[in-house]
Amino acid sequence: MLQLQDTDKNALRTEQARLQAEYDRFKAQGLSLNIARGKPSKEQLDLSMDLFTVLTPNSDMFSTDGIDVRNYGCLNGIEDARVLMGEYLETDKDHVIIFGGSSLSIMYDLVSKAMTRGILGSTPWAKLEKVKFLCPVPGYDRHFSVTESFGIEMINVPMTDDGPDMDLVERYVESDASVKGIWCVPKYSNPGGVVYSDETVRRFAALKPAAEDFRIFWDNAYMVHHLDPAHPKEILNILEECEKAGHPDLVYELASFSKITFPSNSISALAASTSNVEDVLNVMQNQIIGHNKISQLAHARYFKNMDGVRAHMAKHAAILKPKFDAVEEILSAELSGLGIATWSHPAGGYFVSFNTLPGLAKKVVAKMKEAGVTMTGAGATYPYKKDPEDSNIRIAPSFATLEEVREAIRIFAVVVKLVSIEKIME
Amino acid sequence: MLQLQDTDKNALRTEQARLQAEYDRFKAQGLSLNIARGKPSKEQLDLSMDLFTVLTPNSDMFSTDGIDVRNYGCLNGIEDARVLMGEYLETDKDHVIIFGGSSLSIMYDLVSKAMTRGILGSTPWAKLEKVKFLCPVPGYDRHFSVTESFGIEMINVPMTDDGPDMDLVERYVESDASVKGIWCVPKYSNPGGVVYSDETVRRFAALKPAAEDFRIFWDNAYMVHHLDPAHPKEILNILEECEKAGHPDLVYELASFSKITFPSNSISALAASTSNVEDVLNVMQNQIIGHNKISQLAHARYFKNMDGVRAHMAKHAAILKPKFDAVEEILSAELSGLGIATWSHPAGGYFVSFNTLPGLAKKVVAKMKEAGVTMTGAGATYPYKKDPEDSNIRIAPSFATLEEVREAIRIFAVVVKLVSIEKIME
Repeated sequence: MLQLQDTDKNALRTEQARLQAEYDRFKAQGLSLNIARGKPSKEQLDLSMDLFTVLTPNSDMFSTDGIDVRNYGCLNGIEDARVLMGEYLETDKDHVIIFGGSSLSIMYDLVSKAMTRGILGSTPWAKLEKVKFLCPVPGYDRHFSVTESFGIEMINVPMTDDGPDMDLVERYVESDASVKGIWCVPKYSNPGGVVYSDETVRRFAALKPAAEDFRIFWDNAYMVHHLDPAHPKEILNILEECEKAGHPDLVYELASFSKITFPSNSISALAASTSNVEDVLNVMQNQIIGHNKISQLAHARYFKNMDGVRAHMAKHAAILKPKFDAVEEILSAELSGLGIATWSHPAGGYFVSFNTLPGLAKKVVAKMKEAGVTMTGAGATYPYKKDPEDSNIRIAPSFATLEEVREAIRIFAVVVKLVSIEKIME
Repeated sequence: MLQLQDTDKNALRTEQARLQAEYDRFKAQGLSLNIARGKPSKEQLDLSMDLFTVLTPNSDMFSTDGIDVRNYGCLNGIEDARVLMGEYLETDKDHVIIFGGSSLSIMYDLVSKAMTRGILGSTPWAKLEKVKFLCPVPGYDRHFSVTESFGIEMINVPMTDDGPDMDLVERYVESDASVKGIWCVPKYSNPGGVVYSDETVRRFAALKPAAEDFRIFWDNAYMVHHLDPAHPKEILNILEECEKAGHPDLVYELASFSKITFPSNSISALAASTSNVEDVLNVMQNQIIGHNKISQLAHARYFKNMDGVRAHMAKHAAILKPKFDAVEEILSAELSGLGIATWSHPAGGYFVSFNTLPGLAKKVVAKMKEAGVTMTGAGATYPYKKDPEDSNIRIAPSFATLEEVREAIRIFAVVVKLVSIEKIME
């Protein structure tokens, strides 16, 4: 197919006028659509309503380890929840600490703790001249906000189809003691949908950091969030690989049930080595007496085990897949072969990562806003919200209805073509 | 009545032998009693079981401000919860941020934030040579653990019947810019049961701190926790008094429903000036997307308003009062007028504060442990767990049954008399 760059100017001008007219018609409709955030839809939330009946006034309120889940106590979480999360993260319950609903809060607290107290006896980061984090890009904006908010310098590391560029990761981590961490979403990455290859995971586990308190922040946010549950993607177990490589303390693994049950009231977890778990609990005991154990027991009784989780996730997939299919179908029909865009074809997770020609992402998102469609801000997928190419846009089709997704992506395709032609004509 | 100090040695020796025999009989019973922590009893937890039915799969899941409480979002808390907490803390909903179940976590986070970022633009405390907190003593051990864990120097300030010694507080706060905060439990203080007088509250509000980022941590933990709900004690509204005195930013007020519904799953709140609220939200947005709004809605719908809360607290009082009465009755019958002990006679809260002759608290708690009764560690009510007099013991009668409380306090009275006679005979 002919690429737009090779099309003659007159034809382009005609197409531009047609697209402009189409865009104006969309704009005139006064739409209000939102494909900005990776939020579950109402239909998805409705899947978990039985969580409201799993514990009743007549229920036994004691965990298997004998704790009244209504009262104070149990810093690391009740056994029932640690067993479930251990199964989820393929590790032993003793390597798991259960927190509240937000794994973002765990990560924030881990960084905060490192700032004020260091890690396993290291110098508190706040006392160091310079602290740096590696940030695979494009990546998750809220990861970057955590490190930015503490004044940590963030270094972009490009993503490949197999995960972060590991040559670069190794070079930074092994040569620079001020590099203290890296943000990873190893499966169905946000936003690229990348699944880290076995080699990538093994190279992570084999890292020999210059800093003793370097940690991999392994945010396994989409562990079971397959779009096609019959063909789930799997990654190597990072805890196991680190253990095998003789670096058990190298990684903090995070997960939450926010996109399994309710974002507002789920359970989240840190899985880590025995030393890391002790180090974290040692600080946590000053911070809280115990997290929400009622929610912990409700989740454990509701799912029973990983089979329960997987069956539940198949229902999510049935709702999400048509939306992702719609995005792919429209983008492919409208933009394929034009040489003006590339995008991801995720097998799971919550996002499609889209790349315009350089310098157009901000313009596209602004024009979408004008037409009543809210998208994630251009640049948000980069540290400091600075996409050096100004080309990456995150599409989040989960929250809107299928029809809204179709409508939004149809407009999006028009806008992308329009601003691309404008650029080519310049 | 004759004081033990004035009793003749022979009579004392006889009494000592009698008490020792009595103590040995208790010990031989192999008891296992616990009056250590301020935990609600099972009977109290059972009062709130309707919280499990207030939201059902058929409930409207939207807050009055239109938020689906199951999903992400709403950093400061849903309106329904902020209105209830505003009524609770006698302030406007816009001065309230709702958090998870633990107000201890809020306080920890406030200190942590001050350490790494300062307050309203001040120098981060971690960058200062020295940071100090005033600690009214005896006080709440978990307050002291927060500041100790950050390496903040703690200074004892004696409690009086009207609150902390305000002459001392003023002298420290107004002369020393390294004094950054003070821990207060202004009503039914932990452990002394002290209710701050109007003059104390006004003197707090009138403080002119040497440090611009000095804050009063006003932990209003027992706001409605009266033992005699017909005669509640009231204190002045600190937010209002600070506002009137022209120092609206001087105070962080904290509260939680942990001892109203379930410690494990309640709601907690920070109430503060507009500037403080903005300053805190500005950091929080990096930490969490939103707290548990399902719990927020459940609490708001369950109580409806303060009348609902007060009616509920009357049920708690009916369970707690007999236990406090038992403590008072036995202590009074066994120890009054002997000149070997003083104790508080609280009208609310969770504790009785008990003072032995100097140097005996540790011995008493150890002997109680030997007899199978766990008490709060002696010294716990002081920073660094160091009671300079070794005389304060915190009694927590809430968790045990009434019969267990009676048994424990009977043994306690025997132990106190026994070690006091030993001391007098020395």
